[in-house]
Amino acid sequence: MRLLSFLNNGRETWGAIIGDGVVDLGSKLSHAALQDFIASSDFEKRDSIVAGFKPDLKLADINYLPVIPRPEKIVCAVRNYLDHHQEAVAFGMQREITAFPPIFLRVWRSQVGHDAPVIRPKVSTHLDWEGELAVIIGKPGRHISEADAMQHVAGYSIYNDVSVRDYQRHAQQIAAGKNFVGTGPFGPWMVTTDELPDPTKLKLETRVNGNVVQKSDTSFLIFSIPRLINYASEIFDLMPGDVIATGTPAGVGFTRKPPMFLVPGDVVEVEVEKIGVLRNPVVDESTQS
Amino acid sequence: MRLLSFLNNGRETWGAIIGDGVVDLGSKLSHAALQDFIASSDFEKRDSIVAGFKPDLKLADINYLPVIPRPEKIVCAVRNYLDHHQEAVAFGMQREITAFPPIFLRVWRSQVGHDAPVIRPKVSTHLDWEGELAVIIGKPGRHISEADAMQHVAGYSIYNDVSVRDYQRHAQQIAAGKNFVGTGPFGPWMVTTDELPDPTKLKLETRVNGNVVQKSDTSFLIFSIPRLINYASEIFDLMPGDVIATGTPAGVGFTRKPPMFLVPGDVVEVEVEKIGVLRNPVVDESTQS
Repeated sequence: MRLLSFLNNGRETWGAIIGDGVVDLGSKLSHAALQDFIASSDFEKRDSIVAGFKPDLKLADINYLPVIPRPEKIVCAVRNYLDHHQEAVAFGMQREITAFPPIFLRVWRSQVGHDAPVIRPKVSTHLDWEGELAVIIGKPGRHISEADAMQHVAGYSIYNDVSVRDYQRHAQQIAAGKNFVGTGPFGPWMVTTDELPDPTKLKLETRVNGNVVQKSDTSFLIFSIPRLINYASEIFDLMPGDVIATGTPAGVGFTRKPPMFLVPGDVVEVEVEKIGVLRNPVVDESTQS
Repeated sequence: MRLLSFLNNGRETWGAIIGDGVVDLGSKLSHAALQDFIASSDFEKRDSIVAGFKPDLKLADINYLPVIPRPEKIVCAVRNYLDHHQEAVAFGMQREITAFPPIFLRVWRSQVGHDAPVIRPKVSTHLDWEGELAVIIGKPGRHISEADAMQHVAGYSIYNDVSVRDYQRHAQQIAAGKNFVGTGPFGPWMVTTDELPDPTKLKLETRVNGNVVQKSDTSFLIFSIPRLINYASEIFDLMPGDVIATGTPAGVGFTRKPPMFLVPGDVVEVEVEKIGVLRNPVVDESTQS
């Protein structure tokens, strides 16, 4: 099943996709947000629940919100594709691959939905893409073993971990460059694990104005999804709707010669096989109200 | 005025301190949480509002929650006291002081209130203290100048940025060691800016079992509070209830020879002049339900 969050006549809601239509489940069920539905016992009964309704809107008319608009945590893996690790080392960054998945955090307020503008901030022109597979947690847990980890996944989506590279390099801690307002496209929807049971061999492609800039496959992850969940759960109580962005492959803009950054008017797309295409135009902050 | 969040008969609420008593404002006003009150026009009228009530509870009986139980963002400054910077460099860490305040993020679910246990996790014994002055944002804003920054502050409190040092050093990104469940004491209350107009010369002392381990003064901050707010607001939309933990002075445990870590049974206290004492016992995770 494909689930999403959206605006319906300006009201924040969520629902399920049926063919080329969308059921507004937020107006029919008691769960205020998609993450509440995922946390509830209704999530297991979603097929029979959705079968009882007809679409309220056309998918083509949807005003998308981030799949989970306000995740409690957005845990992002750093340098989790071997090819991206190598391009960063070639760029002059000194890093080793350790036994532990490097992680940082993103705040929910940095997120945008499918079709919504990525905002190039006033203070920088170093805006760069990072196409990623996103894991959405279903069952809560702590100290989750790798063997049990996949039982805690509700589904998968696409993240564009858009980065402001000069701010990212202001300090050893990269959070500053990873949290700008309007830099976290997340969508267009999530695909639940019954429809997508195996996330380990999904083609991933990022395009800028139609030109392919990243082309890889989730089989090249250094730290697997079970290991990311296992490690995160040593630290955090993982909760329904928490997001793990699994890292980006080679092909980002800052390592190119000359570097290539996103500029207003660009359209950036991230496509992940069996999920869909997350597409966002780029605008200048000064043009935003 | 001193404002706090607490449990009243198991119900989460918030209120104000009057003498040795507490008014349960959460049961009297329409704001569900302290951060909603701070965001409202009632916050400016707090003196006249509170003057209309008598205390409901004794301060001595309060079951404290983190001052802001669920801040949207907890932005933490790294290495923001010159003495702490120097002890880290002497320990062998290679860092320079740059033009930009290094920051990382903490998730709200890692927080605990005054008196509540700090939890030493199953996976580590490297539990270390970091006493800090916390700034609580009142007026929202983006691109806030240093000159305007103090107008965006609602008040001050105390943070103990308890760190799991081995996890902190698993990777260059330290978020893993800064976000364990039960490692973010925040309290006991906030003091509003009318009562504490100048945060720049406050004595700060951390004690373990009564022994002083950190002793400094907020005049030694490398990046001032206005600069921290200015920098954070270039990145984030700052919101009411957002927390900026301003960094810790010298005297942490891991740089000592031999290193000194918190163990179950310890009591860790952070005292900041004109605010109060944030006190927490340390327990093992295995003893927690």
